Amino acid sequence: MKRTSFSEMPCSVARTLDHVGHWWSFMIVRNAFYGQTRFREFQESLGIAKNILSARLKDLTEAGIMKKIPDRNGSKYSEYILTEKGWDLQPVLVALMQWGDKWEPHESGPPLELLDKRSGISIPYQGIRNAEGDVIPREELTSRFSSAAKEMLMKKAAE
Amino acid sequence: MKRTSFSEMPCSVARTLDHVGHWWSFMIVRNAFYGQTRFREFQESLGIAKNILSARLKDLTEAGIMKKIPDRNGSKYSEYILTEKGWDLQPVLVALMQWGDKWEPHESGPPLELLDKRSGISIPYQGIRNAEGDVIPREELTSRFSSAAKEMLMKKAAE
Repeated sequence: MKRTSFSEMPCSVARTLDHVGHWWSFMIVRNAFYGQTRFREFQESLGIAKNILSARLKDLTEAGIMKKIPDRNGSKYSEYILTEKGWDLQPVLVALMQWGDKWEPHESGPPLELLDKRSGISIPYQGIRNAEGDVIPREELTSRFSSAAKEMLMKKAAE
Repeated sequence: MKRTSFSEMPCSVARTLDHVGHWWSFMIVRNAFYGQTRFREFQESLGIAKNILSARLKDLTEAGIMKKIPDRNGSKYSEYILTEKGWDLQPVLVALMQWGDKWEPHESGPPLELLDKRSGISIPYQGIRNAEGDVIPREELTSRFSSAAKEMLMKKAAE
């Protein structure tokens, strides 16, 4: 079901989307962050067809984002838990969430608040931070290709 | 082509994905960040079918993420530029990029480097920051529902 693979393109966004570019994959990962681990939990809370959920869980497992383990309470069912690689998607989810809260706000305000457990203080708008931890204004953010990427692009252009 | 809409769920991630959950939408927005504005540019660089590109640009325009404007150099073609709402997706793209660089690294290293123009210094791993601008360790990040969201969930549970 995967569309054209962009894996060979020198772009880390494309490589990430190869793994989590399915709408449903994001939703499953989101629910896993909230503590869901069982097929039935994902299925009921997302209202997703079983065959689609199976396919997405298989993709996520093969990509090493989730791991299928025997039930920790000893039932015959399996649990699906996030790996370290999966937990590391949290900044993507938070960025999606903050964008939604700002641009597609729910009429009763942001439904979920994220906080630093140690201080009990909500996290601020994340934006993009510099080495000092300050938000970089959009017009001050710039990019450059690595020399390896430049070489690759020049080779392509010469083809 | 949209799947079940999650707009009524009190989740900002779902509401965001309603607009940009298409794999291709992210890639178009990414290329717009890099300065592309023309249909043909998107089409050639992404190797995307014209009808799919048309559909995605229409979605992005209707969602207010991109705007179609007359060519600024006076040609008969149009340009597609990011709106403020579109530019605000930059943190999502950066989070996807940093995840890809870490977990699906390109053999010759990160192809693209982002930097603060003012200092010339690369941006650090973004993670999730607290009010002081420091990265919050995963186990110290927690969440709570707003009272409006709690009410909604209780109503649902009582149905």
